[in-house]
Amino acid sequence: MILLDGKTTSSDIKDEITLEVLQLKKEGKKTPHLAAVIVGNNGASRTYVGAKVKACNRVGFLSTLIELTDDTTEASLLSKIDELNNNIEIDGFIVQLPLPKHIDEQKVLMAVDPKKDVDGFHPTNVGKMALNLPTFISATPYGILELLERYKVETSGKHVVVIGRSHIVGSPMSILLSQKRTVGNATVTITHSRTRNLKEITLQADIVIAALGIPEFLTEDMVKANVTVIDVGITRVEDTTKKSGYRLLGDVAFDEVSKKAAYITPVPGGVGPMTIAMLLKNTLLASKNNN
Amino acid sequence: MILLDGKTTSSDIKDEITLEVLQLKKEGKKTPHLAAVIVGNNGASRTYVGAKVKACNRVGFLSTLIELTDDTTEASLLSKIDELNNNIEIDGFIVQLPLPKHIDEQKVLMAVDPKKDVDGFHPTNVGKMALNLPTFISATPYGILELLERYKVETSGKHVVVIGRSHIVGSPMSILLSQKRTVGNATVTITHSRTRNLKEITLQADIVIAALGIPEFLTEDMVKANVTVIDVGITRVEDTTKKSGYRLLGDVAFDEVSKKAAYITPVPGGVGPMTIAMLLKNTLLASKNNN
Repeated sequence: MILLDGKTTSSDIKDEITLEVLQLKKEGKKTPHLAAVIVGNNGASRTYVGAKVKACNRVGFLSTLIELTDDTTEASLLSKIDELNNNIEIDGFIVQLPLPKHIDEQKVLMAVDPKKDVDGFHPTNVGKMALNLPTFISATPYGILELLERYKVETSGKHVVVIGRSHIVGSPMSILLSQKRTVGNATVTITHSRTRNLKEITLQADIVIAALGIPEFLTEDMVKANVTVIDVGITRVEDTTKKSGYRLLGDVAFDEVSKKAAYITPVPGGVGPMTIAMLLKNTLLASKNNN
Repeated sequence: MILLDGKTTSSDIKDEITLEVLQLKKEGKKTPHLAAVIVGNNGASRTYVGAKVKACNRVGFLSTLIELTDDTTEASLLSKIDELNNNIEIDGFIVQLPLPKHIDEQKVLMAVDPKKDVDGFHPTNVGKMALNLPTFISATPYGILELLERYKVETSGKHVVVIGRSHIVGSPMSILLSQKRTVGNATVTITHSRTRNLKEITLQADIVIAALGIPEFLTEDMVKANVTVIDVGITRVEDTTKKSGYRLLGDVAFDEVSKKAAYITPVPGGVGPMTIAMLLKNTLLASKNNN
């Protein structure tokens, strides 16, 4: 069994980006600049955004953190986005989700200029992804493609089973892996809560992507030998034996499934760390397009 | 076996649209107006566009046919599109494909205002479709959804196998049928030229959508009893016994597969006639949005 180590891989990617940034600077080109907008005081969101800013610093990007209070109106957030769209110093920006309930998330995502949408959430970028045109692929699917590529996991002609149909992971993953691309050309089955004979289907899979958000859902009896398993889930479960009072569980019963798997991502340290690296890659691309 | 009769169904839809147009006129609202741009002298393209214009007349839409010569430059086509984007009389328009080789098709499709893109080919509309947001769904996938809905073919929890991954049919079909929607909630497998064990997969299907463009590819040994079969293929095959010198074949060996099927589309007269009806539905929607 080979561990698909997202921590090491994302660190490698960050090192590669650091070198690219040094090269850009040497050529007198602009330093990539990411902005992040956060509305309100959600603790998890603050942690995520903080990690993104820190990652920018590490690779030599400029970063701008825009913190808005909980009572920010939709109109004032939209006007801030408009400002970022028009600020030529900013190459790309993200609006950290979730937003407070009085703000229409879809409306906000639609307001981001697709050229600066390094999260890849704007319909125009989702459409380009679906049409296999150059675009910003959103961080989680992009990170999974990158992990599979760097570990040389063959996907062409393989049967991939995706569990979960979210717009963030399951749906784009199923689209990408079926396309003609380096990591692609797979036969892909997308399954979800309405799927009747899930186990019968996962047992056929060469690669399983578990992205449904139910801790330890995928058990060893559901996969065949030498399967590759990508675990996108990450759920906090109470654990009084831990100092923090909780531990993190993926959607895969790691201990038992890992015994059968050829390749498997751990949780934490698998897909999670890849997402920030891919956000940086998208920002670098935005910056090059903006040079 | 029940025939999914696209000819009758599309005729029903046209009748419904005719009534809606009469109602719109009665309310003093604008008459839906579709424009079609055709470049060059491709015989098949002229036939298709002609049928679209005729269908507009039948339901009481206004239509404008813009015929450009083979040597039209990309720039002049783009300027024509710009004109249509800004013409408030026109609710929606299509650019008939294929375009002459000196014109970049993707660039042209990207130039169409998504609000007037009744073909649903613009990345913004493809993205909205993938995100299950209201949009123009392109005619062939939309027509298949409509056929399944009108014949009350259950899709929820069923296993759909799509053969072919084109951006026009296979890919959007696989996305749409897996979504939470009236005709949807299916477990969907997308297969293509790189799929290794196709027969093993199609034998599991409750619904097969054949969209690969190989005449009579799907044979009776590849499907289980009581399958529903949607045949998107339409290929001209030489036939000296016919006055025209050819006959039209689908991707399904109809004579043998129909004996096993619960529901099946004929070719011609299945999916084909639905596409124009759905283009009219999209134009009606564009007109309502423009009212």
